[in-house]
Amino acid sequence: MAIQKLQVGMAGLGRVGKIHAINFLQRTPRAQLVAAFTPDPNEISWGKLNLEPHGVTLYDNYDEMLKHPGLQAVAIGTATSVHAEETIKAIEQDLHVLCEKPLSIDVDVCKAVVQAAKKKPHLKVMCGFSRRFDESYRDAREKVEQGLIGRPSIIRSQTCDKFDPSGFYVEYAAWSGGVFVDMSVHDIDLTLWFFGDDIIPKSISAHGITAVQPELKKYKDYDNAVGIVEFQNGKIAYYYCTRMMAHGQEDTTEIIGTEGKLAVNSNPQRNFVNHYHSGGITREVPPNFIGRFGAAFVQEANEFTAACLDNTPLPMKLSNAVKAVEIGAYLQEALVTGQQIHFDEIGRRIEKAQL
Amino acid sequence: MAIQKLQVGMAGLGRVGKIHAINFLQRTPRAQLVAAFTPDPNEISWGKLNLEPHGVTLYDNYDEMLKHPGLQAVAIGTATSVHAEETIKAIEQDLHVLCEKPLSIDVDVCKAVVQAAKKKPHLKVMCGFSRRFDESYRDAREKVEQGLIGRPSIIRSQTCDKFDPSGFYVEYAAWSGGVFVDMSVHDIDLTLWFFGDDIIPKSISAHGITAVQPELKKYKDYDNAVGIVEFQNGKIAYYYCTRMMAHGQEDTTEIIGTEGKLAVNSNPQRNFVNHYHSGGITREVPPNFIGRFGAAFVQEANEFTAACLDNTPLPMKLSNAVKAVEIGAYLQEALVTGQQIHFDEIGRRIEKAQL
Amino acid sequence: MAIQKLQVGMAGLGRVGKIHAINFLQRTPRAQLVAAFTPDPNEISWGKLNLEPHGVTLYDNYDEMLKHPGLQAVAIGTATSVHAEETIKAIEQDLHVLCEKPLSIDVDVCKAVVQAAKKKPHLKVMCGFSRRFDESYRDAREKVEQGLIGRPSIIRSQTCDKFDPSGFYVEYAAWSGGVFVDMSVHDIDLTLWFFGDDIIPKSISAHGITAVQPELKKYKDYDNAVGIVEFQNGKIAYYYCTRMMAHGQEDTTEIIGTEGKLAVNSNPQRNFVNHYHSGGITREVPPNFIGRFGAAFVQEANEFTAACLDNTPLPMKLSNAVKAVEIGAYLQEALVTGQQIHFDEIGRRIEKAQL
Amino acid sequence: MAIQKLQVGMAGLGRVGKIHAINFLQRTPRAQLVAAFTPDPNEISWGKLNLEPHGVTLYDNYDEMLKHPGLQAVAIGTATSVHAEETIKAIEQDLHVLCEKPLSIDVDVCKAVVQAAKKKPHLKVMCGFSRRFDESYRDAREKVEQGLIGRPSIIRSQTCDKFDPSGFYVEYAAWSGGVFVDMSVHDIDLTLWFFGDDIIPKSISAHGITAVQPELKKYKDYDNAVGIVEFQNGKIAYYYCTRMMAHGQEDTTEIIGTEGKLAVNSNPQRNFVNHYHSGGITREVPPNFIGRFGAAFVQEANEFTAACLDNTPLPMKLSNAVKAVEIGAYLQEALVTGQQIHFDEIGRRIEKAQL
Repeated sequence: MAIQKLQVGMAGLGRVGKIHAINFLQRTPRAQLVAAFTPDPNEISWGKLNLEPHGVTLYDNYDEMLKHPGLQAVAIGTATSVHAEETIKAIEQDLHVLCEKPLSIDVDVCKAVVQAAKKKPHLKVMCGFSRRFDESYRDAREKVEQGLIGRPSIIRSQTCDKFDPSGFYVEYAAWSGGVFVDMSVHDIDLTLWFFGDDIIPKSISAHGITAVQPELKKYKDYDNAVGIVEFQNGKIAYYYCTRMMAHGQEDTTEIIGTEGKLAVNSNPQRNFVNHYHSGGITREVPPNFIGRFGAAFVQEANEFTAACLDNTPLPMKLSNAVKAVEIGAYLQEALVTGQQIHFDEIGRRIEKAQL
Repeated sequence: MAIQKLQVGMAGLGRVGKIHAINFLQRTPRAQLVAAFTPDPNEISWGKLNLEPHGVTLYDNYDEMLKHPGLQAVAIGTATSVHAEETIKAIEQDLHVLCEKPLSIDVDVCKAVVQAAKKKPHLKVMCGFSRRFDESYRDAREKVEQGLIGRPSIIRSQTCDKFDPSGFYVEYAAWSGGVFVDMSVHDIDLTLWFFGDDIIPKSISAHGITAVQPELKKYKDYDNAVGIVEFQNGKIAYYYCTRMMAHGQEDTTEIIGTEGKLAVNSNPQRNFVNHYHSGGITREVPPNFIGRFGAAFVQEANEFTAACLDNTPLPMKLSNAVKAVEIGAYLQEALVTGQQIHFDEIGRRIEKAQL
Repeated sequence: MAIQKLQVGMAGLGRVGKIHAINFLQRTPRAQLVAAFTPDPNEISWGKLNLEPHGVTLYDNYDEMLKHPGLQAVAIGTATSVHAEETIKAIEQDLHVLCEKPLSIDVDVCKAVVQAAKKKPHLKVMCGFSRRFDESYRDAREKVEQGLIGRPSIIRSQTCDKFDPSGFYVEYAAWSGGVFVDMSVHDIDLTLWFFGDDIIPKSISAHGITAVQPELKKYKDYDNAVGIVEFQNGKIAYYYCTRMMAHGQEDTTEIIGTEGKLAVNSNPQRNFVNHYHSGGITREVPPNFIGRFGAAFVQEANEFTAACLDNTPLPMKLSNAVKAVEIGAYLQEALVTGQQIHFDEIGRRIEKAQL
Repeated sequence: MAIQKLQVGMAGLGRVGKIHAINFLQRTPRAQLVAAFTPDPNEISWGKLNLEPHGVTLYDNYDEMLKHPGLQAVAIGTATSVHAEETIKAIEQDLHVLCEKPLSIDVDVCKAVVQAAKKKPHLKVMCGFSRRFDESYRDAREKVEQGLIGRPSIIRSQTCDKFDPSGFYVEYAAWSGGVFVDMSVHDIDLTLWFFGDDIIPKSISAHGITAVQPELKKYKDYDNAVGIVEFQNGKIAYYYCTRMMAHGQEDTTEIIGTEGKLAVNSNPQRNFVNHYHSGGITREVPPNFIGRFGAAFVQEANEFTAACLDNTPLPMKLSNAVKAVEIGAYLQEALVTGQQIHFDEIGRRIEKAQL
């Protein structure tokens, strides 16, 4: 007698969609990838080669996929602009959902997803922030819980990508929500995790430049940005995001407490090799987020699956995904307008005239 | 239509057997674990809980398992003393074999396995040296192939385990073949990989102590040993093995060439976390070989499976597994007798009287 | 015939004054410490023990010391509040001056010193920013000059001190000028060095907390602060300063360019020892700035001496010392008021009403 | 009244002699370099430029220098072949002596120096092993004394120089005593320091190759050598020495105890800079021993001076310098003959026939 496996459909077979598809197909023992949707012919071709032979049915229509017989859950890795709509549709079909971050770059749209999910409390709806599934971040979090650094007070966190000379990220900026929403949202989510998701911003500042891709200006975006979020309870998080790194992916976080500090990935490395040569000693760096967080994506798929099958709580709240986007959007506004943003003690925005 | 999967049976469900079993069950997409054998009632219980529900048939008789309908391959993770016999039996049943290292602690027995395998050239018979499947060692090997360090000339390699206070390793020494055969055999295998498997020893020296487990002396074994193998072609490998480490697993290798050096794992780390505290900055270390080589075992299972299904060459020669044990046994002899061993230019041993 | 040595008088024998005194006495071959002034009886006692036996005349009156026969140069390491006055007096006596940073916490006072120095162009007047004499920072600077990182665009720099439980830094805050003027001024000076001293701020943001010393609030100071300075030419510097570190001194700087990055001291270490123990691998961290920059202070004394004796240019401009304090004071204002500060293209401040 | 300074004469102004001369001239506050001897005209020229202007009298005759008025101590940095003779002559003239290592490559000659020194117990006679004055080694030693690693049991220590393509080291091999005496003698001295100087060898093995300088064979020397010394009390030291490193100086030591390990310089680095570029992250390595041990030489000069002036014990025993050479010479013999050497419990050599 075979064990019951979660029947999963994958929406989107782009860069991150392919990863999720392969993970649900091969690295999630309790799940079975049974369907995949993509509107893109190239991605369909990839699916025919890599998924169909394993019994996965391909769809070029999302609504059709949702009707796949026996489907229990959907993983969404399409373009950000359709995340929310697809998530809500799946919820309406009584399907569990694992949606790639962000739910939307629009806070109100995010909130609508949360509302939809609230109506079906038996469903598991998760917005995947991969770093929460990373072994190192989890270890850091446990050490904080154990009190090893006293009271966490300052977070420094950065999302730094290797430079992509193709120009892809210029057009991407048209709809990405901007660097703070697209990249730093991970760092903001970590802030909620380490500081507590009830923290309330007090003031927000941000500054940015276009050092290598001045074309970004037409979409009011930047290729390097620094932002600070001060919270009401005497904590500060500050962020750096860039897509200009020569050496590779460098996502680093420091949690600084009153009695110690934890640093995650302060020495990025691709593997355990050091090359000693006439110019010194060199180690390589992962070229992209998969090189750093590949295992976290697998962990995420497995934990989502377990929560669905066993009806156990998800490891993260959906409302955090809204809050992270909200703070990201404020940072982006502060960046684009060049103006600091202030909040009162219960988090209501204070207009400039009031200051 | 389902894709054909390699039908695998697992022999042995002890420490390393469990890992192989789970890997073939869950992390080897092209393989299906269909059977498992163990003579041990506790291990059978574990199998009932973890394997049977997934459709794996359990056997307490190895010969019976070999007759499992449709079985194509066997993975052997039982005690070293039965590796060879079980491998030969499987070969006789026309089954592919992945056998844990070493084939045997007796060189002649190893050779018998190679002979048996030679008679069935259509079968894939591999002795698993996990480090050859590790991403870092492979990267180092590629860099050597690219000529980045000139001509490899010196190898320093160590196998260092965290101290196990239970006393397990004392009784284990009764039949392990000794530390050089049991532990350094990995380092010797790496030497064959980096120096070439046609290298011929010229002389061998070894020295050891019992620093924390004097009881080892009754089995003529040591808890710390250092050995040197000088080869005929102007290369030297030197090894350190110990089971006394306070901090965890520390398997480090340096390949030193005429124009550079590669170091693998010279800074062991459990993950990417550093803890800053009043005593300094601390990072943790993997407690055991799985913490360091877990992914390599998965890679090994997948590559073995692919070679069986696609009838492609295995990534390593079975004869190397003999040669590694042979050199390990010489080191052990040099260690126990306190006498250097010499060889002539074609590798024949030179007796002391001849020197 | 003895070589002529620069006759140096030391003002102040406190923490940093003692260091300068010993450096000029023992580690500056071309200088001779001939006099020392301090109004503090304890420091006089120290001088009697450590300086007088080496032929150094002690003074408890600064003006008297300036008249010491043959005196050519004064090093000033007294309290910040008298730096400027003492520097100007020395200039008026036709003496070279090496003054500890900052010249003053008041920008106008700093400017007065520069004016005084301008009137005596034959004198060498330097405000000592020790990091400019550090071998690592110099190596980083050379690599930038060689173009190794393209165009420097982002600087992250932090001054992080080990926590001092004595409470000393609370009272110190009464007259220190605040953390950005007292601590980050080093990071700002580095910014001028790496970005060019003609850079003009565009906007400045700062946020701070009192995590461990709430008493600082009475002096409107903070124990952790983060600030961002955006410059007119598309460059950004961001700073973190704290006196809360559990582990020791951690002054780290990253210079991020369009084609690479240089990091200085991203892995603080007291020496080359790593301790492997059951909790992992630990290295210690220097407890204070002398543990990190001791050699830079010696280098500074030697280069100042050489410039005086040989009438060669000083390694840094006095006007930078003003500019660094000016930017530090703006950061401090932004911190205390909680308001961003903006500047026009030629660096004139834009009032809020104009925004 | 001036403080009394130790009047020092320097013998030899070659590579290491220049360093000692400058150290005694400028970085040893309690010493005064008053004389220097060298038979080499080029070195005399260097002395005229760098020492004479500071009041140092130059001599081209060693015996003459010993008669320099008021001379109290001699530092010897000439060729190894004259170390012993010059040391004995200085002792006979009632002068303190700091002699560069080794006293001689001949054990009997070393012993003669010790005998000469014993006759004048009021004199300070030291053979300088610089690593004993290095802050990191001292920290490691203190940690061992504190019991942090339990009982030291295994030492791994290496002396690895950057490759010198000039061919200098080929001719140098004619009289250097061989790599174990010339290079590993430092590692052996450390062994005596960490294991105790009363340890007695039990057996010694050594192997070597000529990977880049086959011409060394004519002097029976090697450019890479590995040796093991097993001691009677259950301890082992193993050594690697080479002059083939592409990247620079890499002198590393591990002291492995029953409860922990200390590593000194396992990550060589020139300074605190890391360069991040498209090929990864690179740090540079010191090109030579001065880049690593420069400060230790200064410390050595100061401690020797203090011991002479204050008549306090030297930090190391002269007899150790003999023992280190003795063990080095055994290693070299084992290397050249290809034969293990054995000793009885009181350290007497056991001839092969007896084994």
